Amino acid sequence: MTQKAVRDMDVRRELEERTLEAEGIIRRFLPREEGYQKTIMEAMSYALMSPGKRLRPILMRECAACFDQTSPQALPFFMAAIEMIHAYSLVHDDLPAMDNDLLRRGKPTTHARFGEAMGVLAGDALLNYAFETALQSLETDGTNPAVHKSLILLARKAGIYGMIGGQVVDVESEHIQGMDKHRLDFIHELKTGALIEAAMCIGALLGGADESQLLTVEQAAAKIGLAFQIEDDILDITGDEKTIGKPVGSDERNHKVTYVTFAGLEGARRDAESLTREALENLASLPRKNDFLMELVAYLARRNR
Amino acid sequence: MTQKAVRDMDVRRELEERTLEAEGIIRRFLPREEGYQKTIMEAMSYALMSPGKRLRPILMRECAACFDQTSPQALPFFMAAIEMIHAYSLVHDDLPAMDNDLLRRGKPTTHARFGEAMGVLAGDALLNYAFETALQSLETDGTNPAVHKSLILLARKAGIYGMIGGQVVDVESEHIQGMDKHRLDFIHELKTGALIEAAMCIGALLGGADESQLLTVEQAAAKIGLAFQIEDDILDITGDEKTIGKPVGSDERNHKVTYVTFAGLEGARRDAESLTREALENLASLPRKNDFLMELVAYLARRNR
Repeated sequence: MTQKAVRDMDVRRELEERTLEAEGIIRRFLPREEGYQKTIMEAMSYALMSPGKRLRPILMRECAACFDQTSPQALPFFMAAIEMIHAYSLVHDDLPAMDNDLLRRGKPTTHARFGEAMGVLAGDALLNYAFETALQSLETDGTNPAVHKSLILLARKAGIYGMIGGQVVDVESEHIQGMDKHRLDFIHELKTGALIEAAMCIGALLGGADESQLLTVEQAAAKIGLAFQIEDDILDITGDEKTIGKPVGSDERNHKVTYVTFAGLEGARRDAESLTREALENLASLPRKNDFLMELVAYLARRNR
Repeated sequence: MTQKAVRDMDVRRELEERTLEAEGIIRRFLPREEGYQKTIMEAMSYALMSPGKRLRPILMRECAACFDQTSPQALPFFMAAIEMIHAYSLVHDDLPAMDNDLLRRGKPTTHARFGEAMGVLAGDALLNYAFETALQSLETDGTNPAVHKSLILLARKAGIYGMIGGQVVDVESEHIQGMDKHRLDFIHELKTGALIEAAMCIGALLGGADESQLLTVEQAAAKIGLAFQIEDDILDITGDEKTIGKPVGSDERNHKVTYVTFAGLEGARRDAESLTREALENLASLPRKNDFLMELVAYLARRNR
């Protein structure tokens, strides 16, 4: 095995462990499946615990570990909340009125399994429950300004100036001839980037970051988010179907304008690499060195190379 | 004119004034319609500012006025937030997968006007923006425990243990033969009641209510919510089409089991009256007498008699 292959294996193993840990935390906040409204709890759990790396809660926790207060008591609430927001966005994305997907990673999507009405409601329920969960941190940690800032940031980055905003422009752009680079950047920044920024910034805030450190983390997160998106676009062309979980070349067949359309395959690779390098430099400047976080970011940027 | 007719006219006039005031407050929190994601702001504003009495924000404000701190600085944020949650629930209720309604009070519903994908997203955006708006109160009033409690209560009463929970059971009950009274009470309590409880309890909390006063307000709100629902069911049978904004007798044609199915028309009237009387007694026990609130509650319970 090459040195890179050994390193990749180590990161993957470590990531699997963190994924299990994150899932353990998220599961603690799942509502009990009981009462007349039992079906909605089942649908929420189905959507939330469907296969995934739990990257957002992991990034949140690892960013907290870059600061002095490494395990703040509010952290688990926000780890669960951000995964709920990610999950709800997938449930609503898959609806017939949106992407109309019946399968996600080989499993029936939530509305395919529970019906369309329950798909709408399960998404609503997960979004609402995300805030219900994050707000619980006020009960024990209500005087902590970092908790206030984290709540405000979570709502902002998930909403029309964040993820939903990106989603709206993405949906509308399907009907627009001649997507320009600026509009595409906007979509990527908000649709993929905003929630990663929320995850990493909330981690930093709860860890005790000051204003300027928070800005550093936000910049790193924006670069990481964009690098992920570029990687996705590259993988759609060069990846193999089994790894990426959808048919190769689907973007081209759907005439979807991607990062590669503007930068070319080589240019896209170069940009993803330099974005990752800059993000790693940002992260290296934080008070505590977090080797796993650095390795994870580097690994995610070189997947399937 | 009879004495009752004069009194009704006075309350209606006063209510119209309060509605305009509440709309002025809500409008201040609307996002500016600009940027690539402009359409979603337009859809949110369309849904939020469509005709309505703004009962929830009005009840919130009037409940605050039953206590010593009559205009708490956090109040406007929560008034706007609760109306946003009410508006999102209507937008998603009207979707093809749910009630499939193209008209609401004679105007095209949000998805009929903006397309189904934008209907899903506008609902999501309003729910998220409700929390974004309410959370702003932490910036100026973050150390106030009443604000913390209000945020937690808002999320709880809007979610699976509140409004969404009721909605889920209502949707599922369409396919169930032999609805029982207990299940119907559950739906009413959550689907209609929970948000009215949130409105009135948040008003009370921000006004300075203590635990026992909060309980009194919650009990009053539950009774008022149920009385409203019973009135709706009665109006569906006895009302005229122009006033209620939908065809008379639609529940019966849809084989919908309502309060009247179990209690009969006279029984339903009696129950609505005694619930209202009890609620008024609850409200009369609060520190400050609020004549308008009492008159409003009584008026709403005798609409179209």
